[in-house]
Amino acid sequence: MNSDYPSILLEHAVDQFASLPGVGRRTALRLVLSLLRRPENEVEAFTGALSSLKRDIRYCRICHNLSDQEVCPICSSHRRDHHVVCVVENVQDVMSIERTGQFSGVYHVLGGVISPMEGVGPQDIEIDSLLGRISAEGIREVILALPTTMEGDTTNFYIYRRLMSLGIADESLRITQIARGVAVGNELEYTDEITLGRSIMNRIEFKG
Amino acid sequence: MNSDYPSILLEHAVDQFASLPGVGRRTALRLVLSLLRRPENEVEAFTGALSSLKRDIRYCRICHNLSDQEVCPICSSHRRDHHVVCVVENVQDVMSIERTGQFSGVYHVLGGVISPMEGVGPQDIEIDSLLGRISAEGIREVILALPTTMEGDTTNFYIYRRLMSLGIADESLRITQIARGVAVGNELEYTDEITLGRSIMNRIEFKG
Repeated sequence: MNSDYPSILLEHAVDQFASLPGVGRRTALRLVLSLLRRPENEVEAFTGALSSLKRDIRYCRICHNLSDQEVCPICSSHRRDHHVVCVVENVQDVMSIERTGQFSGVYHVLGGVISPMEGVGPQDIEIDSLLGRISAEGIREVILALPTTMEGDTTNFYIYRRLMSLGIADESLRITQIARGVAVGNELEYTDEITLGRSIMNRIEFKG
Repeated sequence: MNSDYPSILLEHAVDQFASLPGVGRRTALRLVLSLLRRPENEVEAFTGALSSLKRDIRYCRICHNLSDQEVCPICSSHRRDHHVVCVVENVQDVMSIERTGQFSGVYHVLGGVISPMEGVGPQDIEIDSLLGRISAEGIREVILALPTTMEGDTTNFYIYRRLMSLGIADESLRITQIARGVAVGNELEYTDEITLGRSIMNRIEFKG
């Protein structure tokens, strides 16, 4: 045998699974063998779901979230407040915020954050479309809900400056960012210093 | 939205990945989105590798290992000792033993072990074909290399008894099992009592 694998077909399938993020070759083999034990129609259902996702998925024309239609259910909903736009990095963030049940506005999915290290510039993500949307649609509040990382902060600041320089950000537009602080249920003792420091600086009135 | 997902297509693909062993919905979403970011031909390579594996894979007629041919490379090799058969549970075990470079015989892949709890009986795994092979092929040694679990022990014992009752196991056939003991590099202090106890009982001559 040239390789560790008894079959080239098996090796190719393992190669594919092992190319996924966080999946090692041992795990990949386990997943492939588990699929191989299933009847053929179930394996077809697996590959079919992936193929039709790739072929038929669309990005919402307005917010750029993944969608089955040209405009996603959130952007086309009459129950949502279309004057409040929450700017997020990706699809998972929309899902996370939706699960909180605390937000009734709409989203704008950037599809990334500015990262000079990884060669992602402002033109690589959906910032221009965000600015266009804010100018055109009578948005009253932009909530910046990007990751609390250097890249997220850079992107927040870039968007803020662009809004300022375009003269869009006047008294009719609030620009906010999500609160950063001690996570609910966490001990202060185990909270990192930067977070704890900021949560003291940004303290709010106690409503007893 | 009826579900957490912005797209039914996305949800279906996540359902499929989350049906794999040890993959939760959050991991499944991450894997699906990572595939979605790839160009279409790469997604086709992914699904194609799985489809052709399922369609074209064969089980070696002799040892029942996965193979691209009717007889696997090990069973058809002239460099292997076809008088020594190592009985293993599954494909991964063949790969693990091959990687040691310590075995030059051939294999017999049972495809499972006897497990009354999971409804796996002797007729569900490749035991009859093993016995047939041993009767017909002039095997001189059968190495039982099944997991050191209750199910593995049960299967070892079942095979042994069948060999006895068929009158196959005479002085011309050795039946051995892999050594169980303290793993190489392990401290005795951290070795479980059963393993340590057995490794004392089954001590061998020191060849200094």
